[in-house]
Formats: sequence, C-alpha cells, structure tokens
Amino acid sequence: MTTNIYFIRHGIAAGREDCPTDAERPLTEIGDRKTHKIAQKLNQLGLHFHLILTSPLVRANQTAKILQAHKLSPKVEEFSPLAPDGDINLWLQWLETWPPQKNRELALVGHQPDLANWAEILIWGETREVLILKKAGVIGISLPEVGSPVGNSQMFWLTPPRFILD
Amino acid sequence: MTTNIYFIRHGIAAGREDCPTDAERPLTEIGDRKTHKIAQKLNQLGLHFHLILTSPLVRANQTAKILQAHKLSPKVEEFSPLAPDGDINLWLQWLETWPPQKNRELALVGHQPDLANWAEILIWGETREVLILKKAGVIGISLPEVGSPVGNSQMFWLTPPRFILD
Repeated sequence: MTTNIYFIRHGIAAGREDCPTDAERPLTEIGDRKTHKIAQKLNQLGLHFHLILTSPLVRANQTAKILQAHKLSPKVEEFSPLAPDGDINLWLQWLETWPPQKNRELALVGHQPDLANWAEILIWGETREVLILKKAGVIGISLPEVGSPVGNSQMFWLTPPRFILD
Repeated sequence: MTTNIYFIRHGIAAGREDCPTDAERPLTEIGDRKTHKIAQKLNQLGLHFHLILTSPLVRANQTAKILQAHKLSPKVEEFSPLAPDGDINLWLQWLETWPPQKNRELALVGHQPDLANWAEILIWGETREVLILKKAGVIGISLPEVGSPVGNSQMFWLTPPRFILD
C-alpha cells in the first residue's frame, strides 16, 4: 500500500482588517483566480485525490472546493484539526481509520505554519521551520508502507505556485 | 545579499554495463531529449544562474551544457567535489570565495544521493535521506544572509521533472 499526502495551502485571502473574524476571511478575486489556475494545472499533471480534508476556515474551504470543481477529488470534508494550531496527532488518529487500499492519495488544505510543520514532523519527527510553503503551494509526502509515518516519511515535492504555472 | 542554490540531478544515463567506466556514462537519447525539455522549461520559469558548477562525470557535464545551451547561465565550470562521494566542505570553502553581489543564483549539477545529502546538510545540519530527487529533478535552497549556511538554510523547491513538464 502506498500513501501520498499533498499539503496544499489556501490561496491569497482578504486582509484581517477587512473581515470580522480571521475564520471568515475569503479568497480575494486574484486569490480565487490563481487558485483555479493551480487546480487546473494539478489536474493536467494527472493528480487525483481520493479525499480532500480541509480546514473549516473560509479561505481553506473555498480552496478545497476549487480543487474539487477541477475534478481533483470526488469528496471534500471539513477536518477541524487543520485549522490554525491544530494537533497533528488528531490527524494521525484519523489516518488509522482511513480504509486501506493499494494507492491512497490524500490532500490536506490548510494554513501556514501548520502545514509545513506537519510535513516536517512526518519527514524528520520534529518541526524546524525550514520549508517555505507559499499560498496555493504544495508539499508532497510519501508515507512508509508500514509503521508510524512520524519521522519515517519522504518528501517528493515542494513547490510555490509560480513553478507550476507558466 | 540573497543566495539561492539549485541542485540539479543529471538526466537519464546509459547503464553501467554499456560503458568502460561509470565516469564515462553519457545521457541516453531519451535522457538528452528530456533534459533539453527541462532546461527549456526552467528558462520559461524565469530562472537564471550566474554560474553552473558541475560534476566532471560525463552525464553531469552534458546536463550542465544543456542548461547553458538554453541560456540558463553564461558559464559552466567543472567542480570535482560534485563527483560522487564529494565533500560538501570543499564546496563551502569555494562559496566563501564567490564574489558577493545582491542576488546570487548558483546551480550545482551532480549525482544522487550526494545532492540531496548536501541539501539536507544545508537545511538541517545532517543527512537524513528523506528527500526524493529524481533524474533531472531540482532542489531549491535559500541560504541565510549571514552566518554559516549549514543547518541555517531554507528549502523553497523540490520537484521531479514530471511536475514541471506538461
């Protein structure tokens, strides 16, 4: 069984000063357009996720829905530990319950620094804040076939949007 | 002063059984064609290196020359520590002598596992073998403005060729 995790950061969102709460900040018009382009490109690259888990915050949820609109996944579910400061252990517990199959592809849509921190925990067991993940950027992590993924995973992809758009 | 390092692995090369020595293994026809496509794409992405240092082995040298042919750099120099099992400290010494300027962009063309090992040393001070670098793939590392880059650098890019070609 192979399991690949794609950490995808939400697109460009409205400033904190423009919204009553951080959770409600939507993508800007440019953020929306750029996220559509990225989603289209990810589809062209042949990516397909069995499921997208997303932070419940508006800007992440919108990003996840755009990925779904471009046929990257049949299914989007809100997952509260993907909100800022969420606990990776809750996701690791969830992962145990995810039905095994030959090749599993999962996208996680959320925020910085949490996404890169989670990726760092998977690849070397602790956070070091050395991975630069831009808005609408992607980190691709391959989990080990057996055993805990913490400190036992490998990274095959890290990209800002500008290196996949033309 | 910002300094970005691009680790670029040589393209697909002839098998060991087809050449008198490992050092002489050339790119295959497919390897050559694919490396040209990658070089063209890197150019389209707006990349430009002030200098390309390459392993003296034929397959790396050919890769570096292809990058140069696509106007990615005015200059290619052979650098023996980029050969397999080369010592990163020799490169760090070289780096001290590289003339400072506002934005320095340097490409290093070489081999696995050495390139990913060097990148890992820069970002977290030791090798962990958790970065997957495919043939003709790229790792982008941003060095700190001051101090030793060892354990103090950040990664902004890691890609296999398939995610930058269409």
